[in-house]
Amino acid sequence: MRFGRIATPDGMFFCTVEGAEGEEQCKVIEGTPFTDPKYTGKEYAMKDVRLLAPMLPSKIIAIGRNYADHVAEVFKKSAEHLPPTLFLKPPTAVVGPGAAIKIPEFATNVEFEGELALVIGKPCKNVKAEDWKSVVRGFTVINDVSSRDLQFADGQWSRAKGIDTFAPLGPWIETNLDAIDTDNLPIKAHLTRGDVTETKQDSNSNQMIMNIGQIVEFITASMTLLPGDIISTGSPAGTAPMEPGDFIEIEIPGIGKLGNPVERA
Amino acid sequence: MRFGRIATPDGMFFCTVEGAEGEEQCKVIEGTPFTDPKYTGKEYAMKDVRLLAPMLPSKIIAIGRNYADHVAEVFKKSAEHLPPTLFLKPPTAVVGPGAAIKIPEFATNVEFEGELALVIGKPCKNVKAEDWKSVVRGFTVINDVSSRDLQFADGQWSRAKGIDTFAPLGPWIETNLDAIDTDNLPIKAHLTRGDVTETKQDSNSNQMIMNIGQIVEFITASMTLLPGDIISTGSPAGTAPMEPGDFIEIEIPGIGKLGNPVERA
Repeated sequence: MRFGRIATPDGMFFCTVEGAEGEEQCKVIEGTPFTDPKYTGKEYAMKDVRLLAPMLPSKIIAIGRNYADHVAEVFKKSAEHLPPTLFLKPPTAVVGPGAAIKIPEFATNVEFEGELALVIGKPCKNVKAEDWKSVVRGFTVINDVSSRDLQFADGQWSRAKGIDTFAPLGPWIETNLDAIDTDNLPIKAHLTRGDVTETKQDSNSNQMIMNIGQIVEFITASMTLLPGDIISTGSPAGTAPMEPGDFIEIEIPGIGKLGNPVERA
Repeated sequence: MRFGRIATPDGMFFCTVEGAEGEEQCKVIEGTPFTDPKYTGKEYAMKDVRLLAPMLPSKIIAIGRNYADHVAEVFKKSAEHLPPTLFLKPPTAVVGPGAAIKIPEFATNVEFEGELALVIGKPCKNVKAEDWKSVVRGFTVINDVSSRDLQFADGQWSRAKGIDTFAPLGPWIETNLDAIDTDNLPIKAHLTRGDVTETKQDSNSNQMIMNIGQIVEFITASMTLLPGDIISTGSPAGTAPMEPGDFIEIEIPGIGKLGNPVERA
């Protein structure tokens, strides 16, 4: 099942999303996506509404250096010398599908990073790796936008990756955990500049150093997770600079496509 | 004026705090501390209630390496080679005055860091340094608890400083901005082990590299701040390890004292 959040002339609602690509229908639900849906009877064609980020998290925990190929391209070192690490992106960085990524003048060398995101479904702490499905409500897609120059100048990454609009999230939450093989999941990023679209990231979650269960165990050993919290599981190789005027689309088959234009702030 | 948050037999409330140390009265208010208080008429003696963290922030933005003396003691380098940086602590790390700092087995060499904290009063972005008072509701005290071993092993600091209970906050929000000279403010940390209390930090905000206005301008150039967001302005020298059984008290004259026991998680 897919849960989205929509802006309509009648207000903002959570909904389920059904139907084939380009013909989706949004069925408004009562309450939140953390329980089985109870429909209000209100329904919209997706083309008539605006899809928002599917969740406003209390925190976004991101795993860095979780793909060996990306560690090599960005850090110029092998992953065994630079193990995965954890950082936070602020909730204020979240924007939804189609919203502009706005690059301020001081943020130079800004790159996309297409990543699989987990949406936490219940308060949890000290979750064992094998129990991860019991605390995850579903999957979505995140673009961990990063100003490489600020990232390395600061040392700490939260400013370079925490600028307003630097966390596009969506398009919706796919809750069918068993339908997604998180150990063998393609992750792609398509960058459009002018009339040319290039597939810049074309990797697979089988390249992850920590898998989904290990990530959930690692984080919850330290931090309580709350419903709606987002875990960003790391980016594969192929990240590349974006410029105002570009359009960047992250695609994870079985989950969805997250597309955002790039503008000057 | 001082705003606190209290747990009482009748529920949790925001309140104002009045009276001399040890004889404070808590006068319950309607709504939140972001406006002039409207009293409900309910009142408690502080000794009869439990003081909670005065705010549950949507984000905690912390400035690292903002005191030259602390940069030298922790990083073994001079501040001109390691300028201030920005990191985030998760809201789930917040605990109130008197609540235990709980150290898990894997967090070794855990130190206190006494810091002046700003409580943001209104949504804001791109605030000029000289306008900082227009967006700050008041001051409080934070203990930026840090596992040094994790901090350096991870490279990124958000896990080492983001463990549950690693952000004691309080005791209340002092809103009289003009009564506090943020350019000349003593900051102290008193560590009690057994029968012995030692003053480990005894510094002054006049040692800050970025002052309060510069910090607000620096952060809001990147991130929108929301009411209740906390800015932790950096720790001076004198940080030292804590052990289960210790009691750590951070003191900022004119604002208050924030004391917490230390336990094994």
